[in-house]
Amino acid sequence: MDDETTTPVTVIGLGLMGQALAGAFLKAGHPTTVWNRTAGKADRLVAGGARSVPTVGEAIGPGHLTVICLTDYRAVHEVLGASDVELSGTTLINLSSGDSGQARETARWAQARGARYLDGAVMAIPSAIGTPDAVILQSGARPDFDAHEPALGALGTVTYLGADHGLASLYDAAGLTMMWSVLNAWLQGTALLRTAGVDAGTYAPFARHIAAGVADWLPGYAEQIDRGSFPAEVSTLETDARAMAHLIEESEAVGVNAELPRLIKAMADRAIAAGHGKEQYPVLIEEFGRPGAR
Amino acid sequence: MDDETTTPVTVIGLGLMGQALAGAFLKAGHPTTVWNRTAGKADRLVAGGARSVPTVGEAIGPGHLTVICLTDYRAVHEVLGASDVELSGTTLINLSSGDSGQARETARWAQARGARYLDGAVMAIPSAIGTPDAVILQSGARPDFDAHEPALGALGTVTYLGADHGLASLYDAAGLTMMWSVLNAWLQGTALLRTAGVDAGTYAPFARHIAAGVADWLPGYAEQIDRGSFPAEVSTLETDARAMAHLIEESEAVGVNAELPRLIKAMADRAIAAGHGKEQYPVLIEEFGRPGAR
Ligand SMILES: NC(=O)c1ccc[n+]([C@@H]2O[C@H](COP(=O)([O-])OP(=O)(O)OC[C@H]3O[C@@H](n4cnc5c(N)ncnc54)[C@H](OP(=O)(O)O)[C@@H]3O)[C@@H](O)[C@H]2O)c1
Ligand SMILES: NC(=O)c1ccc[n+]([C@@H]2O[C@H](COP(=O)([O-])OP(=O)(O)OC[C@H]3O[C@@H](n4cnc5c(N)ncnc54)[C@H](OP(=O)(O)O)[C@@H]3O)[C@@H](O)[C@H]2O)c1
Repeated sequence: MDDETTTPVTVIGLGLMGQALAGAFLKAGHPTTVWNRTAGKADRLVAGGARSVPTVGEAIGPGHLTVICLTDYRAVHEVLGASDVELSGTTLINLSSGDSGQARETARWAQARGARYLDGAVMAIPSAIGTPDAVILQSGARPDFDAHEPALGALGTVTYLGADHGLASLYDAAGLTMMWSVLNAWLQGTALLRTAGVDAGTYAPFARHIAAGVADWLPGYAEQIDRGSFPAEVSTLETDARAMAHLIEESEAVGVNAELPRLIKAMADRAIAAGHGKEQYPVLIEEFGRPGAR
Repeated sequence: MDDETTTPVTVIGLGLMGQALAGAFLKAGHPTTVWNRTAGKADRLVAGGARSVPTVGEAIGPGHLTVICLTDYRAVHEVLGASDVELSGTTLINLSSGDSGQARETARWAQARGARYLDGAVMAIPSAIGTPDAVILQSGARPDFDAHEPALGALGTVTYLGADHGLASLYDAAGLTMMWSVLNAWLQGTALLRTAGVDAGTYAPFARHIAAGVADWLPGYAEQIDRGSFPAEVSTLETDARAMAHLIEESEAVGVNAELPRLIKAMADRAIAAGHGKEQYPVLIEEFGRPGAR
């Protein structure tokens, strides 16, 4: 057997996600130790070959790789802060959801106790874990990541983002914003089209085509942001704002929700009021980059 | 010469878009007649082979195909309603922006005067006209569209949507909502990542990948809407709402705009309050389909 399948791993937290993570390690041949506050959740995994231990202290040890996936960072501190837990010399990979500040603070806390710490985010549902569709984001010191990349590969497609421990949370939040925004725009369009008797299945391919097409513009638009210069190569914000007004009118006229169109126009109007009416859409980064109306 | 290049066409309105449309017809070999309220705008086209006429009445005639592209529908009615304009026996293709109600009303008005009428929308900037990137949406009676599809092909990729004259405006509004939503989600993510020193160019490929990936889910999600049944195959709205709360917290914590995350959560919260917390995201169609908060 090669290194990749023999590294022993520990999984702390056997909720829906933790069980999927431990299951994927087992399936890939890793000797797998598990712990969960409520012990019964280990049963299925033990039947599949996992070793269940009664205390976190026994689950974690020097030279070990420990993946932790609990509800939130408060739970992580509670579990890892127990008096019998020795973090020195271990590597912790925290896949619990939280914000970038919590990730950075937990990294400092764990490192002060002698642990190597990587912070991660799982962009997948439990059933996708162990397939390439599961995107696992990782941030922290590159050597710590490199040492464990082969083992993490059992979980899905692993992406290293950089040394700042806050990056995984930030990319996760950014990705979720994109996910819900595409879904909401599609729902808004579906609602508009249904008023004319067009069913969702007829409209969906059109929405998909537009979303994928606009996605292709992003790298080019990003250059404007990084240069900090927004010449109106395609159209001006003022022209856009006129079409946004149509969007609101159309939504109101046919009786569908108009909150998303109104937010779209409000952001553009603010940039126009700030003097950017003759510039191009990415100039809105200034509005998105500062706290707005509550 | 074949039919496709010899059909004579008329273009009414020579703003930025009208000039591009007339230019594309000329380039494809169509004898092209043009009219604009402010006569000077025809000069460049006349130099390119167009015939400019002093009145709309002379520009439009029985058996002719006339494309009209003015600021709005008010302008369309003003221009076509002039006493010397004979609409009987002509085909009008209106590419001016407006809402679905205006399109349907203008169709009735034109048809009552003996014209065939197609309503359209241009999903492109003027410089793209004449290339496959220019999407031209068309709605109205199928035979009227079929008769002129070859000529319209000179303008870009022409898509016929159905007999309801309001469809082009509705698809246009839906497509624009998708466009601005993808851009706004990308800007939100870019703003989040910039707080950690990640530049827009580094983040853009990630955003593009997520947007294109989510776009691929839409046809499947559309089936739930058309069946009117939303089992939580992937995740429940309640689980989503918890992650949405993280999104708001993250945006507020790093000091970027949180209005988009708050709107995302507000829509989901309303569906949960309506009893859909254990169902899947597309159930939000009910919220998008009715007037919401102002
Ligand atoms: N499920 C998904 O689709 C998904 C997707 C991406 C990310 N995530 C993230 O993954 C993490 C886990 O999610 P999940 O779906 O597995 O949640 P879950 O099914 O609710 O499981 C929560 C886990 O946390 C443990 N826990 C909570 N508070 C604790 C405490 N104070 N002390 C000890 N253990 C505690 C629970 O132990 P008990 O069994 O004893 O209660 C359980 O193992 C969350 O941060 C979630 O946001 C989940
Ligand atoms: N430009 C784009 O990127 C774009 C993209 C998609 C859709 N569109 C749509 O295409 C349409 C035209 O846009 P555009 O960019 O060409 O606008 P534009 O450059 O402002 O031109 C407006 C045109 O409408 C004419 N007009 C306005 N009111 C009139 C009236 N009462 N009587 C006679 N003529 C009148 C103007 O004539 P004068 O020259 O005499 O003022 C001019 O020809 C709009 O509905 C726009 O939303 C434009």
